[in-house]
This record gives sequence, structure tokens and C-alpha cells, in this order.
Amino acid sequence: MRLLEEKIKNEGRVINDNVLKVDSFLNHQIDPQLMNEIGKEFARSFAADGITKIVTIESSGIAPAVMAGLYMNVPVIFARKRKSVTLTDYLLTASVHSFTKNETNELAIAGKYLNENDKVLIIDDFLANGEAALALVKMVKQANASVAGIGIVIEKAFQPGGRLLQEAGYRVESLVRIASLEGAKVHFVE
Amino acid sequence: MRLLEEKIKNEGRVINDNVLKVDSFLNHQIDPQLMNEIGKEFARSFAADGITKIVTIESSGIAPAVMAGLYMNVPVIFARKRKSVTLTDYLLTASVHSFTKNETNELAIAGKYLNENDKVLIIDDFLANGEAALALVKMVKQANASVAGIGIVIEKAFQPGGRLLQEAGYRVESLVRIASLEGAKVHFVE
Repeated sequence: MRLLEEKIKNEGRVINDNVLKVDSFLNHQIDPQLMNEIGKEFARSFAADGITKIVTIESSGIAPAVMAGLYMNVPVIFARKRKSVTLTDYLLTASVHSFTKNETNELAIAGKYLNENDKVLIIDDFLANGEAALALVKMVKQANASVAGIGIVIEKAFQPGGRLLQEAGYRVESLVRIASLEGAKVHFVE
Repeated sequence: MRLLEEKIKNEGRVINDNVLKVDSFLNHQIDPQLMNEIGKEFARSFAADGITKIVTIESSGIAPAVMAGLYMNVPVIFARKRKSVTLTDYLLTASVHSFTKNETNELAIAGKYLNENDKVLIIDDFLANGEAALALVKMVKQANASVAGIGIVIEKAFQPGGRLLQEAGYRVESLVRIASLEGAKVHFVE
């Protein structure tokens, strides 16, 4: 997605060989016009898949997921990061470790919002090691719903997440794929 | 906002006299079409105010704020809830206590995203005691930016937040105002 590549080139900050910060338009400040285009792009990619629900994770997945939901005309569910499990409702759960932040979170989705008839599109802001996407896959499967695909805004293609998800049989559509962050520069996959 | 009142009547769950759950379209599952209409409504209300930025809090404020940002054509910043202050960047900060969840969070916004020329619209999902909105006001003022108004999706008008904010001189626009939750029923302000 050309518009997104330009935005990353102009505003992304390479922190080290593994970490790209895009706080000015995705992870802290959000560019709504860009999110709107991202939503349209996901809707185009998965137009033929009969998607019934979108699932993402708070907080940075919400903006792109809601825009995709708008154009696909389906509800969006965001998995909550939780400290403790105190709710009495039936919950779908998984734990996920973020290597970037070096913290483990419990994720939860209320069971009533997914069922075996759902065809789910998983959307997330970044794909690196695949931990977050695999946790969402696990929760969708707990509900006996099916995963129709995984939509990623920015894939760090030099990390193993994309390969792992594809080897597990999931279709992954990344709007941009980064080959490396070496030399404090963003190199996109050709 | 009639559409939102209908949604609350049909899907809102009154937990007790103080707590209304709207997990099916705002706080966990999100209805993107409804968020789109909410965004348009906020854009209409504040069309004459020269808004340059929208500020909200993760996670439930993000969807309505991003839709408002789309129609107002301005960036959206979401304050992050933080456990600890370890970043070295200049931060705007405030602490906020949630009575519903009985927890206190530190909020942070990177200082570089707000400056003294900004006219800020604060958006949040609920207004009850006003703690969250006042914390956002405090952060906007730390940046010497001005608060042009506060847009609320659901105001619990039987709690003091709306009055407190208005007495402090802020314009509050709530899309729906709830007079009481007594008798396990939602009574709207006429």
C-alpha cells in the first residue's frame, strides 16, 4: 500500500534493528484519513470471504479494525488485555507475550460475541513474531468460529510471524512488508 | 441522538443503579456504522470551533474519536494508561480514578503532539464523575493548548461530571443523557 509506505518513510522512527515506532499516525496519534484508506484496503482484500466479524486487540488495532468493519459492514470485537480473571461471564482467553514491551498479557473476549457460524477476519497493527495473531486465532477457535484470514497493517517480514501463520494454514494480508530496519532505515520488501 | 438511544434501549444492560453496560456496540464489540454516525454528529456539533486535534483515552474512546477525526479532518491522540513512567520523552501526564473499575491509572500523552496553537476536542465514551475528562483537560493545559469542548457518547446525568465540567467553563456535548438507571431501566433526560 503505497500511501502507507510513504507515511512510514516520512514519519516512522527506527529505534533499533527490530523496533519501528509509528506513534505519529498509528500507535498514539492516529491519522483518521489513513485509517479510512486502510479500512477500504482490508475490505477489498477480503471482499470474497464472507466475513461476519472482525477481531482485534486493544488499543492500536482498534482504529484500522473499525474502519475495515465500516466498509465490510460487520461488527468489530477488541480483545481486552486483563490483569486478572474476575468476570463470571463465559470468556475466550489466551495469553500473549510482547517481545517489544517485554510483558505478558492475558487476553479475553466475551464468549457470546463469537459462535460457530462466524467467519472471522483478524486485524492487528503489527506482525512480528506472531504471538498476538496466534493468541487471537486461539480465541476464535475456542468459539468454534473459523479464521478467514489475518489482516496486518505493518509486517516486519524479517521476523518469523508471517511464515509461522502461513505454515499453520492462515492467509495473511499485510498492507506493507518491511524487509529490514538495518542502518536506521526502513527497507521495504520489493 | 435518536439512533444511539434506540441502541441503548435495545442492547444496554443495566447492572445496577450506577452501571450501564454497552459491551455489544461500544466497549468490547463495536458497531462501526453507529460509530460513523457518532463521528458525523460530533463533527456537526463542533464544526464552528476550529478544532485542530482530538484527544481521547484508550481503549473505548478510540472508535468514536477516530470517526469524529475523519469527518473533522484532524488527528486523534489517545492517552495511554501506564503502569510506570519509564519513557525519557517529554510527557503530559495525569492520574485518573475509575469508580466503576475501582482502579487508578496514570495517563500519558507524548508532549510533541500538542502545542499552544492547538484547539482540542476531548472525546470519551462515558461521562460519570468527570475524572477522565478532567484528567484529559489537565494534560491539554500542560501543553498550553486550549480545550474547545468535550464530546461525550453517553452521559450519566445523575452523576456530577457534566455539572462539574460546565461549572469549570467547558462546553460539554453529550450525544445521549441518562437521567437514571433505577428499576433496572434506562431513563433518558427529556
